[in-house]
Amino acid sequence: MIFYLQIAKTLVDRIQSGLLPQGTKLPSVRHLSTLLPVSPVTVSKAYAELESNNLVTCTQGKGCREPSEAVTREGALDLSWQMSLIDYLTRAQLWRNFNHSRQVPYSFHIAAIQPGLLPTREIIADTRRLTSENPDAMAVYGAFKGDLELREVFAAHLNERGIRSGAEQLLVTRGAQQGIDLVARTFVGAGDVVYMEAPTYTGAIDVFTSRGAKVIMIPMDEQGMKLDILTRLCDTHPPKLIYTIPTFHNPTGVTLPTVRRTKLLDLAQSYHCLIVEDDPFSELYYKTKPPISIKDHDQSGHVVYIKSFSKTVAPGCRIACVAATGSVLDRLVAAKSTTDLGSPLLTQRALLPFISHRLDHHLDRLRDQMRDRLALALHTLRRNAPPEVSWYTPEGGLNIWIKLPSIVDIAELERLADREGISFLPGAVCYAGGMDSNHISLIIRSSWSGNLFYKGYLYWGLKIQAQGIPS
Amino acid sequence: MIFYLQIAKTLVDRIQSGLLPQGTKLPSVRHLSTLLPVSPVTVSKAYAELESNNLVTCTQGKGCREPSEAVTREGALDLSWQMSLIDYLTRAQLWRNFNHSRQVPYSFHIAAIQPGLLPTREIIADTRRLTSENPDAMAVYGAFKGDLELREVFAAHLNERGIRSGAEQLLVTRGAQQGIDLVARTFVGAGDVVYMEAPTYTGAIDVFTSRGAKVIMIPMDEQGMKLDILTRLCDTHPPKLIYTIPTFHNPTGVTLPTVRRTKLLDLAQSYHCLIVEDDPFSELYYKTKPPISIKDHDQSGHVVYIKSFSKTVAPGCRIACVAATGSVLDRLVAAKSTTDLGSPLLTQRALLPFISHRLDHHLDRLRDQMRDRLALALHTLRRNAPPEVSWYTPEGGLNIWIKLPSIVDIAELERLADREGISFLPGAVCYAGGMDSNHISLIIRSSWSGNLFYKGYLYWGLKIQAQGIPS
Repeated sequence: MIFYLQIAKTLVDRIQSGLLPQGTKLPSVRHLSTLLPVSPVTVSKAYAELESNNLVTCTQGKGCREPSEAVTREGALDLSWQMSLIDYLTRAQLWRNFNHSRQVPYSFHIAAIQPGLLPTREIIADTRRLTSENPDAMAVYGAFKGDLELREVFAAHLNERGIRSGAEQLLVTRGAQQGIDLVARTFVGAGDVVYMEAPTYTGAIDVFTSRGAKVIMIPMDEQGMKLDILTRLCDTHPPKLIYTIPTFHNPTGVTLPTVRRTKLLDLAQSYHCLIVEDDPFSELYYKTKPPISIKDHDQSGHVVYIKSFSKTVAPGCRIACVAATGSVLDRLVAAKSTTDLGSPLLTQRALLPFISHRLDHHLDRLRDQMRDRLALALHTLRRNAPPEVSWYTPEGGLNIWIKLPSIVDIAELERLADREGISFLPGAVCYAGGMDSNHISLIIRSSWSGNLFYKGYLYWGLKIQAQGIPS
Repeated sequence: MIFYLQIAKTLVDRIQSGLLPQGTKLPSVRHLSTLLPVSPVTVSKAYAELESNNLVTCTQGKGCREPSEAVTREGALDLSWQMSLIDYLTRAQLWRNFNHSRQVPYSFHIAAIQPGLLPTREIIADTRRLTSENPDAMAVYGAFKGDLELREVFAAHLNERGIRSGAEQLLVTRGAQQGIDLVARTFVGAGDVVYMEAPTYTGAIDVFTSRGAKVIMIPMDEQGMKLDILTRLCDTHPPKLIYTIPTFHNPTGVTLPTVRRTKLLDLAQSYHCLIVEDDPFSELYYKTKPPISIKDHDQSGHVVYIKSFSKTVAPGCRIACVAATGSVLDRLVAAKSTTDLGSPLLTQRALLPFISHRLDHHLDRLRDQMRDRLALALHTLRRNAPPEVSWYTPEGGLNIWIKLPSIVDIAELERLADREGISFLPGAVCYAGGMDSNHISLIIRSSWSGNLFYKGYLYWGLKIQAQGIPS
């Protein structure tokens, strides 16, 4: 990409993510050109690009600022120097879209299971019993890799699912997010090529772009990532890492069939690269069990498999595990130590009895409950969605990926929905580089029964009608 | 530094930290030169440098390997391709020195308070009461910034200590380690200049070097960092960030007086840079209260203040908070979201009642207990240490920084001590760039009463006698 466009793109992301406070005065051309360092001409071009898109307002002799009425200052402090403090957050869509402060009554944007379906009370009861036996465990630092007992329990579960990793090949992380982040900080640097599905989990895009990776997104069909395209691109852009959510993909719900899984592994072997297999949802199948994981096929330590136990058990506990082999695992453990000296023991121990004894039963029940909710969601969609609206019917997971007519202004729809207490995830945040998308993702929840579509339909309908299309 | 020396240095760190398994075959000159990419001549020079230091063994036509007898392979898998997988861990001393698996009966290397002095049982009792009231809190993702109630309690504590940050200016992190890491990943990139005290906390060196920072270490005197040297260096190497532990410094125990604190802030203001004020120990004063923090003097958002609550309350809970202002805070919160989507709610809530109501009382008692232990440690040192051994008498904190005669081979001493179940922290790991140091750090614990010095003295004595110096 041309350099001034890169600068413009970074500033656009800041403005859109809200990281630049409204009305912020942007650094002067001369100042920014010294800081980056690039020529003043390049910076001027970047600002001109932003101005032509109405993202900044420039005044001759006064510089550029983010357009808004008032400049608010925190207390009486003068923090203006902070604007010249260069940072390395190239993208902050996760922060923008998933901050807890954005709480609405009908929340369909966070891929989380409703609290009522989770075994929180049981886990708390366990914690009580457990902690009374060995309280001093909480007073010491845990192992960097995570509590051994918990890793043994994780290993047993993974083994049942065909992943032959022993406890010593597992690393406990704070949710899958930390797993992805550890891989990125360990193995991805500036200019390294990372392939991902298009679209993909927005939090993973944040992570890889923050490392300065060259992120290349591969289109999908109804069988997942299009490997012919990936193979062709690898020729000219050899991969350092391929990130994939092969099972009930987030956000599309699509599953990669076995033949593509083994092909992907062949590709990794020929390019000596890593595959990150992110698996948040494989237990949440609503028809048949999904194909065995890519990690199952892996004979030579190419796959880093990330299994979240947060989503289906206790999001508040932030627990996942990473299965990896050889020095790849050692290096991830070293990175974990640098990041946080290991996960809290309390949360690890809190989950131990539940995951050892009751997880399978819980998942059986959860699948039934979620299957009902999916049926309701699909029923509501079929009944209420305008004919121009289409969607993919997922066989598992939490997302329904919905295509709106291209005429719908999704940003405007988001604002309207927000006013009514409804949230959804705009598809654009699931692409790197701020690509347009006329998709949205909605999470399967019980409130589909009416609330969403009563109001959601209203807005889509209104919007589509306003554009002159019959709904 | 000359480039081949940099390559050699990185490989040395891997070999010394144990991240390269014994007997590992290193990549061929041709292969490494393609990967890095540098000229084969540069790689050859790096290997020659390593060979001349006996760190690798090279055989004509067979390449170089880490010297050892056997090459072990994990199961039957062939993982040799992993050696060519470039990573971005430039240093892993934390991993090497603090892994939980390195447990010994007389552990003096981890700066942690003995479990018996910590209020673990109380916290667990609180958790029970609390969780029964609002169990669903554990089932949802928390706010990226951390639990609001906990931030309010933290803010109240900081206010009592003169730090006027409201709850909205705090970010809850997984221990101070994550606080440091968030600052680094947000604001430090390749080539950015980071100043630190020499010596300093080894985990902070790991973090900043992993970002590719140019780490410059500033010598200390008995009043902390020598600001005249820092000021001179800033002239030619303008700082992006200054990392300091001004109060009961880790590992030396030295405290920076107020006049230097305000000077440091002036420097940050003139260079538009950040100060990271890491404060693990200020409550652990054994004589008088330490001077007020640098953050107290900060009127323009230059200081990121990191307060660990893990060390004095519950290391297993991994809880600290970061106080920052303006967009610096926002950017840190965005980075936190990318790293782990926020800290676990369970551990945050677990600590809430204790920190609200009983922290001050606990700290009073803890100071008394630690003061006794310090007195005992100093007594033991005075009584048993050979005359060539000297130390700094700390007025707070957990470390005693001990200078051994330069003739002592610290690596050998470490091996001998390890065989007897005694651990200490070799001073060299507290310096960037593998500098030699004839210091060691010992943590103040009750077992100073005899165990350590009975055995420790024995070894020092033996060692010193073996070198022909009377003990």
